[in-house]
Amino acid sequence: MPRILFNSIGVICTPHKEQSGTPIQPAFAPGVLGTVSLFEEYVNALVDLDGFERIWLIYHLDRSKLWAPRVIPYRDTVERGLFATRSPARPNPIGMSAVQLLSVNGRTLQVEGVDMLDGTPLLDIKPYVPAFDAHSTSRAGWFDKTLSDATVADDRFR
Amino acid sequence: MPRILFNSIGVICTPHKEQSGTPIQPAFAPGVLGTVSLFEEYVNALVDLDGFERIWLIYHLDRSKLWAPRVIPYRDTVERGLFATRSPARPNPIGMSAVQLLSVNGRTLQVEGVDMLDGTPLLDIKPYVPAFDAHSTSRAGWFDKTLSDATVADDRFR
Repeated sequence: MPRILFNSIGVICTPHKEQSGTPIQPAFAPGVLGTVSLFEEYVNALVDLDGFERIWLIYHLDRSKLWAPRVIPYRDTVERGLFATRSPARPNPIGMSAVQLLSVNGRTLQVEGVDMLDGTPLLDIKPYVPAFDAHSTSRAGWFDKTLSDATVADDRFR
Repeated sequence: MPRILFNSIGVICTPHKEQSGTPIQPAFAPGVLGTVSLFEEYVNALVDLDGFERIWLIYHLDRSKLWAPRVIPYRDTVERGLFATRSPARPNPIGMSAVQLLSVNGRTLQVEGVDMLDGTPLLDIKPYVPAFDAHSTSRAGWFDKTLSDATVADDRFR
Protein backbone atom coordinates (compact mmCIF):
# COMPACT_ATOMS: atom_id res chain seq x y z
CA MET A 1 0.00 0.00 0.00
CA PRO A 2 1.95 3.05 -1.22
CA ARG A 3 2.24 5.90 1.30
CA ILE A 4 1.71 9.39 -0.02
CA LEU A 5 3.04 12.50 1.68
CA PHE A 6 1.46 15.94 1.30
CA ASN A 7 2.26 19.29 2.88
CA SER A 8 -0.35 21.78 3.96
CA ILE A 9 -0.26 24.89 1.71
CA GLY A 10 -2.21 27.13 4.08
CA VAL A 11 -4.93 27.32 6.72
CA ILE A 12 -8.70 27.83 6.52
CA CYS A 13 -10.11 30.06 9.26
CA THR A 14 -13.84 29.71 9.99
CA PRO A 15 -16.29 30.50 12.81
CA HIS A 16 -16.65 26.76 13.55
CA LYS A 17 -14.70 25.76 16.67
CA GLU A 18 -16.19 22.29 17.14
CA GLN A 19 -17.93 19.70 14.96
CA SER A 20 -21.27 19.93 16.74
CA GLY A 21 -23.24 22.69 15.01
CA THR A 22 -20.89 23.04 12.02
CA PRO A 23 -22.75 23.09 8.68
CA ILE A 24 -22.29 19.74 6.90
CA GLN A 25 -21.92 21.29 3.43
CA PRO A 26 -21.46 24.77 1.89
CA ALA A 27 -25.10 24.52 0.69
CA PHE A 28 -26.08 24.71 4.36
CA ALA A 29 -23.72 27.57 5.20
CA PRO A 30 -25.12 30.54 3.24
CA GLY A 31 -23.59 33.79 4.44
CA VAL A 32 -21.00 32.01 6.61
CA LEU A 33 -17.71 33.77 5.93
CA GLY A 34 -14.21 32.32 6.15
CA THR A 35 -10.64 33.22 5.32
CA VAL A 36 -8.08 31.13 3.49
CA SER A 37 -4.48 32.10 4.30
CA LEU A 38 -1.92 30.60 1.97
CA PHE A 39 1.69 30.23 2.98
CA GLU A 40 3.86 32.85 1.30
CA GLU A 41 5.51 30.53 -1.23
CA TYR A 42 2.18 29.87 -2.98
CA VAL A 43 1.05 33.48 -3.53
CA ASN A 44 2.19 33.61 -7.16
CA ALA A 45 -0.07 30.69 -8.01
CA LEU A 46 -3.23 32.69 -7.12
CA VAL A 47 -3.13 34.85 -10.27
CA ASP A 48 -6.37 34.63 -12.32
CA LEU A 49 -8.31 32.93 -9.52
CA ASP A 50 -10.42 36.03 -8.87
CA GLY A 51 -12.34 35.51 -12.12
CA PHE A 52 -13.99 32.42 -10.69
CA GLU A 53 -17.23 32.69 -8.74
CA ARG A 54 -16.61 29.44 -6.90
CA ILE A 55 -13.53 27.45 -5.96
CA TRP A 56 -12.93 23.98 -4.62
CA LEU A 57 -11.10 23.89 -1.33
CA ILE A 58 -9.41 20.51 -0.79
CA TYR A 59 -8.35 20.04 2.81
CA HIS A 60 -7.27 17.66 5.54
CA LEU A 61 -10.10 16.65 7.88
CA ASP A 62 -7.56 16.76 10.68
CA ARG A 63 -9.98 16.28 13.58
CA SER A 64 -12.02 13.38 12.19
CA LYS A 65 -11.86 10.15 14.17
CA LEU A 66 -10.62 6.81 12.89
CA TRP A 67 -12.40 5.65 9.77
CA ALA A 68 -15.34 3.26 9.86
CA PRO A 69 -16.64 1.17 6.92
CA ARG A 70 -20.27 1.96 7.82
CA VAL A 71 -21.65 5.15 9.31
CA ILE A 72 -25.01 6.77 9.93
CA PRO A 73 -24.64 9.93 7.84
CA TYR A 74 -25.99 13.23 9.11
CA ARG A 75 -28.66 13.22 6.41
CA ASP A 76 -29.97 9.74 7.17
CA THR A 77 -31.10 7.56 10.03
CA VAL A 78 -29.62 4.20 8.98
CA GLU A 79 -26.09 2.93 8.38
CA ARG A 80 -24.57 3.45 4.94
CA GLY A 81 -21.29 2.38 3.39
CA LEU A 82 -18.71 5.07 4.13
CA PHE A 83 -17.88 5.69 0.44
CA ALA A 84 -21.60 6.33 -0.22
CA THR A 85 -21.46 9.23 2.28
CA ARG A 86 -19.60 12.50 2.70
CA SER A 87 -18.80 11.64 6.34
CA PRO A 88 -15.40 12.82 7.62
CA ALA A 89 -14.54 9.37 9.07
CA ARG A 90 -12.70 8.32 5.89
CA PRO A 91 -9.59 6.13 5.37
CA ASN A 92 -7.89 9.23 3.92
CA PRO A 93 -9.63 12.16 5.62
CA ILE A 94 -9.77 14.50 2.62
CA GLY A 95 -12.56 17.06 2.48
CA MET A 96 -13.69 19.09 -0.53
CA SER A 97 -16.05 22.06 -0.54
CA ALA A 98 -17.22 24.30 -3.38
CA VAL A 99 -17.26 27.72 -1.71
CA GLN A 100 -17.98 31.16 -3.15
CA LEU A 101 -14.90 33.28 -3.71
CA LEU A 102 -15.48 36.85 -2.55
CA SER A 103 -11.99 38.35 -2.89
CA VAL A 104 -8.30 37.63 -3.34
CA ASN A 105 -5.91 39.97 -1.53
CA GLY A 106 -2.26 38.95 -1.46
CA ARG A 107 -2.12 35.52 0.12
CA THR A 108 -5.61 35.83 1.66
CA LEU A 109 -8.91 34.70 0.17
CA GLN A 110 -12.30 35.70 1.55
CA VAL A 111 -14.84 32.95 0.95
CA GLU A 112 -18.48 32.29 1.74
CA GLY A 113 -20.16 28.98 2.61
CA VAL A 114 -17.46 27.49 4.83
CA ASP A 115 -18.32 24.12 6.36
CA MET A 116 -14.95 23.11 7.82
CA LEU A 117 -13.50 23.57 11.30
CA ASP A 118 -11.41 26.60 12.17
CA GLY A 119 -7.72 25.97 11.52
CA THR A 120 -8.25 23.24 8.91
CA PRO A 121 -5.06 22.53 6.89
CA LEU A 122 -5.48 23.38 3.20
CA LEU A 123 -4.16 20.92 0.59
CA ASP A 124 -5.26 22.40 -2.74
CA ILE A 125 -7.40 25.02 -4.46
CA LYS A 126 -9.06 24.32 -7.82
CA PRO A 127 -11.33 26.58 -9.87
CA TYR A 128 -14.97 25.47 -10.02
CA VAL A 129 -15.77 24.88 -13.70
CA PRO A 130 -19.44 24.06 -14.42
CA ALA A 131 -18.51 22.24 -17.64
CA PHE A 132 -16.46 19.79 -15.56
CA ASP A 133 -18.18 19.79 -12.19
CA ALA A 134 -21.92 20.47 -12.58
CA HIS A 135 -24.19 17.46 -13.19
CA SER A 136 -27.50 18.80 -11.96
CA THR A 137 -29.65 15.77 -12.63
CA SER A 138 -27.29 13.03 -11.51
CA ARG A 139 -29.16 10.36 -9.51
CA ALA A 140 -28.01 10.37 -5.89
CA GLY A 141 -28.94 7.03 -4.26
CA TRP A 142 -30.09 7.12 -0.63
CA PHE A 143 -29.59 10.87 -0.57
CA ASP A 144 -32.51 11.38 -2.99
CA LYS A 145 -34.83 9.43 -0.69
CA THR A 146 -33.76 10.48 2.77
CA LEU A 147 -36.29 11.94 5.14
CA SER A 148 -33.65 13.68 7.25
CA ASP A 149 -33.26 17.40 6.80
CA ALA A 150 -30.18 17.84 9.02
CA THR A 151 -27.98 20.73 7.98
CA VAL A 152 -25.39 20.80 10.79
CA ALA A 153 -23.08 18.21 12.31
CA ASP A 154 -23.24 16.67 15.77
CA ASP A 155 -20.57 14.80 17.73
CA ARG A 156 -20.86 11.43 16.00
CA PHE A 157 -17.54 11.67 14.11
CA ARG A 158 -15.50 13.38 16.79
CA MET B 1 4.26 23.33 7.44
CA PRO B 2 2.45 20.23 8.74
CA ARG B 3 3.12 17.03 6.80
CA ILE B 4 0.15 14.82 6.06
CA LEU B 5 0.43 11.12 5.30
CA PHE B 6 -2.15 9.21 3.26
CA ASN B 7 -2.30 5.60 2.08
CA SER B 8 -3.62 4.56 -1.29
CA ILE B 9 -6.90 2.63 -0.92
CA GLY B 10 -6.84 1.09 -4.39
CA VAL B 11 -5.82 1.52 -8.02
CA ILE B 12 -7.57 3.05 -11.04
CA CYS B 13 -7.03 1.12 -14.28
CA THR B 14 -7.60 3.05 -17.52
CA PRO B 15 -6.63 2.81 -21.19
CA HIS B 16 -4.32 5.84 -20.81
CA LYS B 17 -0.66 4.77 -20.64
CA GLU B 18 0.91 8.21 -21.07
CA GLN B 19 -0.16 11.82 -20.53
CA SER B 20 -0.05 12.77 -24.18
CA GLY B 21 -3.47 12.00 -25.61
CA THR B 22 -5.18 11.42 -22.25
CA PRO B 23 -8.52 13.27 -21.91
CA ILE B 24 -8.09 16.29 -19.65
CA GLN B 25 -11.47 15.86 -17.92
CA PRO B 26 -14.25 13.22 -17.73
CA ALA B 27 -16.38 15.58 -19.88
CA PHE B 28 -13.92 14.85 -22.71
CA ALA B 29 -13.83 11.10 -22.10
CA PRO B 30 -17.35 9.93 -23.04
CA GLY B 31 -17.49 6.17 -23.40
CA VAL B 32 -13.97 5.71 -22.02
CA LEU B 33 -14.20 2.83 -19.55
CA GLY B 34 -12.05 2.21 -16.51
CA THR B 35 -11.89 -0.05 -13.49
CA VAL B 36 -11.39 0.91 -9.87
CA SER B 37 -9.93 -1.90 -7.75
CA LEU B 38 -10.13 -1.28 -4.03
CA PHE B 39 -7.85 -3.07 -1.61
CA GLU B 40 -9.72 -5.81 0.25
CA GLU B 41 -9.97 -4.01 3.60
CA TYR B 42 -12.22 -1.30 2.10
CA VAL B 43 -14.86 -3.53 0.46
CA ASN B 44 -17.38 -3.15 3.27
CA ALA B 45 -17.41 0.61 2.80
CA LEU B 46 -18.82 0.28 -0.76
CA VAL B 47 -22.35 -0.62 0.38
CA ASP B 48 -25.03 1.77 -1.00
CA LEU B 49 -22.65 3.33 -3.54
CA ASP B 50 -24.42 1.64 -6.47
CA GLY B 51 -27.43 3.95 -6.10
CA PHE B 52 -25.34 6.90 -7.26
CA GLU B 53 -25.10 7.72 -10.96
CA ARG B 54 -21.79 9.55 -10.53
CA ILE B 55 -18.97 9.36 -8.02
CA TRP B 56 -15.97 11.52 -7.26
CA LEU B 57 -12.66 9.72 -7.56
CA ILE B 58 -9.96 11.49 -5.53
CA TYR B 59 -6.50 10.32 -6.49
CA HIS B 60 -2.77 10.91 -6.42
CA LEU B 61 -1.43 12.48 -9.63
CA ASP B 62 1.63 10.31 -9.17
CA ARG B 63 3.30 11.08 -12.49
CA SER B 64 2.93 14.86 -12.53
CA LYS B 65 6.13 16.84 -12.54
CA LEU B 66 7.25 19.33 -9.89
CA TRP B 67 4.72 22.06 -9.27
CA ALA B 68 4.93 25.45 -10.97
CA PRO B 69 3.17 28.66 -9.80
CA ARG B 70 2.21 29.54 -13.38
CA VAL B 71 1.30 27.19 -16.19
CA ILE B 72 -0.21 27.35 -19.65
CA PRO B 73 -3.31 25.19 -19.15
CA TYR B 74 -4.42 22.80 -21.87
CA ARG B 75 -7.51 24.93 -22.50
CA ASP B 76 -5.65 28.20 -22.96
CA THR B 77 -2.69 29.72 -24.75
CA VAL B 78 -1.33 32.03 -22.06
CA GLU B 79 0.09 31.49 -18.56
CA ARG B 80 -2.36 31.31 -15.66
CA GLY B 81 -1.87 31.00 -11.93
CA LEU B 82 -1.70 27.30 -11.06
CA PHE B 83 -4.63 27.45 -8.60
CA ALA B 84 -6.80 28.97 -11.36
CA THR B 85 -6.22 25.81 -13.43
CA ARG B 86 -6.84 22.08 -13.15
CA SER B 87 -3.25 21.33 -14.23
CA PRO B 88 -1.61 18.29 -12.58
CA ALA B 89 1.55 20.28 -11.69
CA ARG B 90 0.20 21.14 -8.19
CA PRO B 91 2.00 21.55 -4.82
CA ASN B 92 -0.07 18.59 -3.59
CA PRO B 93 -0.81 16.56 -6.74
CA ILE B 94 -4.40 15.60 -5.90
CA GLY B 95 -6.79 14.93 -8.78
CA MET B 96 -10.57 14.70 -8.65
CA SER B 97 -12.90 13.45 -11.36
CA ALA B 98 -16.67 13.02 -11.40
CA VAL B 99 -17.08 9.77 -13.33
CA GLN B 100 -20.19 7.75 -14.13
CA LEU B 101 -20.58 4.62 -11.99
CA LEU B 102 -21.65 1.65 -14.12
CA SER B 103 -21.41 -1.19 -11.62
CA VAL B 104 -20.10 -2.31 -8.25
CA ASN B 105 -18.97 -5.94 -8.02
CA GLY B 106 -17.11 -6.95 -4.88
CA ARG B 107 -14.10 -4.67 -4.63
CA THR B 108 -14.30 -3.62 -8.30
CA LEU B 109 -16.08 -0.64 -9.77
CA GLN B 110 -16.70 -0.17 -13.49
CA VAL B 111 -16.72 3.52 -14.36
CA GLU B 112 -17.06 5.66 -17.48
CA GLY B 113 -15.33 8.93 -18.31
CA VAL B 114 -11.86 8.16 -16.96
CA ASP B 115 -9.27 10.91 -17.46
CA MET B 116 -6.42 9.62 -15.29
CA LEU B 117 -3.38 7.53 -16.16
CA ASP B 118 -3.45 3.75 -15.86
CA GLY B 119 -2.34 2.62 -12.42
CA THR B 120 -3.24 5.87 -10.64
CA PRO B 121 -3.34 5.44 -6.83
CA LEU B 122 -6.83 6.03 -5.40
CA LEU B 123 -7.21 8.14 -2.25
CA ASP B 124 -10.96 8.45 -1.75
CA ILE B 125 -14.39 7.87 -3.27
CA LYS B 126 -17.29 10.22 -2.57
CA PRO B 127 -20.85 10.11 -3.90
CA TYR B 128 -21.70 12.87 -6.38
CA VAL B 129 -24.61 14.81 -4.86
CA PRO B 130 -26.09 17.52 -7.14
CA ALA B 131 -27.40 19.49 -4.14
CA PHE B 132 -23.80 19.86 -2.93
CA ASP B 133 -21.75 19.73 -6.12
CA ALA B 134 -23.73 21.16 -9.05
CA HIS B 135 -23.51 24.92 -9.64
CA SER B 136 -24.39 25.11 -13.31
CA THR B 137 -24.18 28.87 -13.78
CA SER B 138 -21.07 29.61 -11.71
CA ARG B 139 -18.86 32.14 -13.50
CA ALA B 140 -15.58 30.51 -14.54
CA GLY B 141 -12.98 33.22 -15.19
CA TRP B 142 -10.57 32.66 -18.08
CA PHE B 143 -12.20 29.33 -18.81
CA ASP B 144 -15.41 31.07 -19.96
CA LYS B 145 -13.44 33.16 -22.47
CA THR B 146 -10.84 30.76 -23.77
CA LEU B 147 -10.58 30.14 -27.48
CA SER B 148 -8.85 26.80 -27.03
CA ASP B 149 -10.90 23.68 -27.56
CA ALA B 150 -8.27 21.15 -26.47
CA THR B 151 -9.74 17.99 -25.01
CA VAL B 152 -6.65 15.84 -24.49
CA ALA B 153 -3.32 16.37 -22.74
CA ASP B 154 0.12 16.70 -24.27
CA ASP B 155 3.55 16.33 -22.65
CA ARG B 156 3.77 19.74 -20.97
CA PHE B 157 3.33 18.44 -17.41
CA ARG B 158 5.33 15.25 -17.72
